[in-house]
Amino acid sequence: MGNEVTKRASDYSQWYNDLVLKGGLADYSAVRGCMVIKPYGYTLWENMRDVLDKMFKDTGHTNAYFPLFVPKSFLEKEEGHAEGFAKECAVVTHYRLKGDPNQKGKLMVDPEAQLEEELIVRPTSEAIIWNAYKDWIQSYRDLPLLINQWANVVRWEMRTRLFLRTAEFLWQEGHTAHATAQEAIEEAEKMLHVYADFVENYMALPVMKGVKSPNERFAGALETYCIEALMQDGKALQAGTSHFLGQNFAKAFDVKYLTKENKQEFVWATSWGVSTRLIGALVMAHSDDEGLVLPPRIAPLQVVIVPIYKGPEQKMLVDQNVHAIMAQLKQKGISVKYDDNDNSRPGWKFAEYELKGVPVRIAIGPKDIENGVVEVARRDTKEKSSVPAAGLDHYIVQLLDEIQHNLYQRALQYRDSHITSVNSWSEFKEVLEQKGGFISAHWDGTGETEEKIKDETKATIRCIPLNNSTEEGACVYSGKPSKQRVLFAVAY
Amino acid sequence: MGNEVTKRASDYSQWYNDLVLKGGLADYSAVRGCMVIKPYGYTLWENMRDVLDKMFKDTGHTNAYFPLFVPKSFLEKEEGHAEGFAKECAVVTHYRLKGDPNQKGKLMVDPEAQLEEELIVRPTSEAIIWNAYKDWIQSYRDLPLLINQWANVVRWEMRTRLFLRTAEFLWQEGHTAHATAQEAIEEAEKMLHVYADFVENYMALPVMKGVKSPNERFAGALETYCIEALMQDGKALQAGTSHFLGQNFAKAFDVKYLTKENKQEFVWATSWGVSTRLIGALVMAHSDDEGLVLPPRIAPLQVVIVPIYKGPEQKMLVDQNVHAIMAQLKQKGISVKYDDNDNSRPGWKFAEYELKGVPVRIAIGPKDIENGVVEVARRDTKEKSSVPAAGLDHYIVQLLDEIQHNLYQRALQYRDSHITSVNSWSEFKEVLEQKGGFISAHWDGTGETEEKIKDETKATIRCIPLNNSTEEGACVYSGKPSKQRVLFAVAY
Repeated sequence: MGNEVTKRASDYSQWYNDLVLKGGLADYSAVRGCMVIKPYGYTLWENMRDVLDKMFKDTGHTNAYFPLFVPKSFLEKEEGHAEGFAKECAVVTHYRLKGDPNQKGKLMVDPEAQLEEELIVRPTSEAIIWNAYKDWIQSYRDLPLLINQWANVVRWEMRTRLFLRTAEFLWQEGHTAHATAQEAIEEAEKMLHVYADFVENYMALPVMKGVKSPNERFAGALETYCIEALMQDGKALQAGTSHFLGQNFAKAFDVKYLTKENKQEFVWATSWGVSTRLIGALVMAHSDDEGLVLPPRIAPLQVVIVPIYKGPEQKMLVDQNVHAIMAQLKQKGISVKYDDNDNSRPGWKFAEYELKGVPVRIAIGPKDIENGVVEVARRDTKEKSSVPAAGLDHYIVQLLDEIQHNLYQRALQYRDSHITSVNSWSEFKEVLEQKGGFISAHWDGTGETEEKIKDETKATIRCIPLNNSTEEGACVYSGKPSKQRVLFAVAY
Repeated sequence: MGNEVTKRASDYSQWYNDLVLKGGLADYSAVRGCMVIKPYGYTLWENMRDVLDKMFKDTGHTNAYFPLFVPKSFLEKEEGHAEGFAKECAVVTHYRLKGDPNQKGKLMVDPEAQLEEELIVRPTSEAIIWNAYKDWIQSYRDLPLLINQWANVVRWEMRTRLFLRTAEFLWQEGHTAHATAQEAIEEAEKMLHVYADFVENYMALPVMKGVKSPNERFAGALETYCIEALMQDGKALQAGTSHFLGQNFAKAFDVKYLTKENKQEFVWATSWGVSTRLIGALVMAHSDDEGLVLPPRIAPLQVVIVPIYKGPEQKMLVDQNVHAIMAQLKQKGISVKYDDNDNSRPGWKFAEYELKGVPVRIAIGPKDIENGVVEVARRDTKEKSSVPAAGLDHYIVQLLDEIQHNLYQRALQYRDSHITSVNSWSEFKEVLEQKGGFISAHWDGTGETEEKIKDETKATIRCIPLNNSTEEGACVYSGKPSKQRVLFAVAY
């Protein structure tokens, strides 16, 4: 396999695919729009999942598991929800195959095994979960109900891209029930902050927090909170959403509770989710023309050690030293691999681990051992330095922190230099075309204007930032009065 | 909700359902044959999964993720496999719903959105995985390939039971590829021992290790290794299987590798899996008429503390003492909950946590504090004792170990006293009817005899034990010569 990565500048989209495929994160599959998440990519997902899972549990949530299938009639119950998801879903209609009488060895759908009611492979689980909550919630004592699910979901997207938009993807979906609207809103906001904390502090990716315009809300939500990140091509990517669902699902599934005052009331709901799409964001945010660049705190492998030697005697000497270093690093909780495969040369290995985005590479040979040093190369800046072997573990711990910090600062600087305030429609189009990034502009608040801007430029309102300052102005498109600026961008 | 559990002796099957439902492990769902795994049950599954996952990684495996859907033509490729799974699978035929023109607000399958080829919701993933392996394996350097997947699978079973047999269930499936038959057989055996280690040492459930008779093999396997456990009603339960698949899937999907000698050879395969079914085994193996009994090493909650008090002053005193105890126990890595909910009385709580199978309950009141003790009740024997508060953490650590050990010994004793050697057909039927358990009997080695025994008694060959001793004898059913005894039982 050729390990050459397409240059960002020549074909950004192909560069991204190269990173995912050649970096060993994922592969295409035989099923349209579905991908295979390969071991290296899956370990990355496990690391992300484990951090998020702990964050959810630390905020009082527990995990549960609900059926993969949603009966068609359940999807119908919440009108907006049905409209949002019915057009792109996998539908199970039969429960048996049989031998094809006309073609030996071939199978066909058994027409006698048709389901009375079609089942939809869950595109999201509000409907099936709220049907269960009806039985679980009786009184205020059962509230709040704070549940999360890790699951696969399917949305039959027409145009798919590895991680960014796949027919099947992995995600988590939180579904909570509360006694009051206020409590549900606080929950939705809390989880938005949890997501922002994770994306910024683990994925090293700064985000804008805000709410969606009504047009961009989740199907069935009264308010959709979101975090938006910026990719290196100036496009935005929605990295997570948290929805205040009001009483829509409670009413659709008749979920009431007995208040302390002995009254029956509908409960209030939230849902929130992030998915394997985050891996796409991670890849595009930090990587370069040599390959992936992964933040140490979630990297599948943090340190790789490559031996430099000629002949078995030198190899033995290097081995001894490496084993001591490995033990030290592991003791500090660092994941480390010794690649002493003698089928490939050090130079090939260097390129391979650069492609895979391993944050730190250590090279060590007899000369280094003589001098009591090792060569340390960091992936983010590609700097190499000779570092004393004594106290190497402390050095590496600090270096991993520094790389994490540097990646965040680099992404932050890029992001901050790509938020442009504009005051006219021509300026809007010019900035969008020539610079990209977020455009901060006045908007008249109508879905109509939003649609027109989208039609003309592909830019959408990514969010109305939280705690947005009010400012009198004129809509950049319609010229009508506006009370605040919102963030536009072309998005993934 | 009435928390009364049906007595084992009066209705074993209802007793089991009561434990699962009232113990809060799972619930029925609106989708036929699919269950909801509730938070308490899911935490149990997480604990089991985490232990197994570490065992898999310690034996060199990594996780990956493959598509939920298997194209129909893939299922056809391995004949035995197709036969085994085609008759009970969920078939996706369409990818879109639309508004029903005749019924406002209703949805219908869009006939224009029919898939060219039907997709099967994976009943197991051999077909989709081996299709991917074709691209991943080129030479002996790519072998062995040691991959595991945690996933949901669907088998459209006609008769379902919570955990034991559900249309959708959660499981892990290992899929490995090897250069030689010998290596693949060793892998299949190694994973059988991993499963046995887990089930015995974490679930406290002794198992018989063996191989299946040809009739009972996995669809597409040359050899199926299994572990079989015994439930309290004398029925056996298959707790895990590991398959040597030979070159069947390699040939079906054309997966060859270049040997060191520069020849093209088909690779050798294994697959192995355990599922949420194990939770059913766990429930049935240890529980009693008061509720669940869960082994400390995987229990969702190991210790519960119930305060005994009258009025806020006593409550405050108890609180202080409990907080100190909690801190100590948590430091030892023990999961502990303080239930100071003042809506329910201590007696109610005692019954509730017995129902839920929490291994240790601590009760503490002002009198105890005065005397420097707490009351400790163990779930397995229901013994209560007064234990000094000083050094309580050490005591609890030891007690949890002791409970774990005791549960295993109790199950082992039951199991060992329920393996009966029989030498005649009348004896076979008598033991099966009056005592149950495993029956060790001579068998002539034919599938025909096996079928007849099953038809007459419902008993099947659970396994031919590993390292079985040879012994000349006559088949208990046909009287034909036999060289070894095998284990029969009626099974779940």
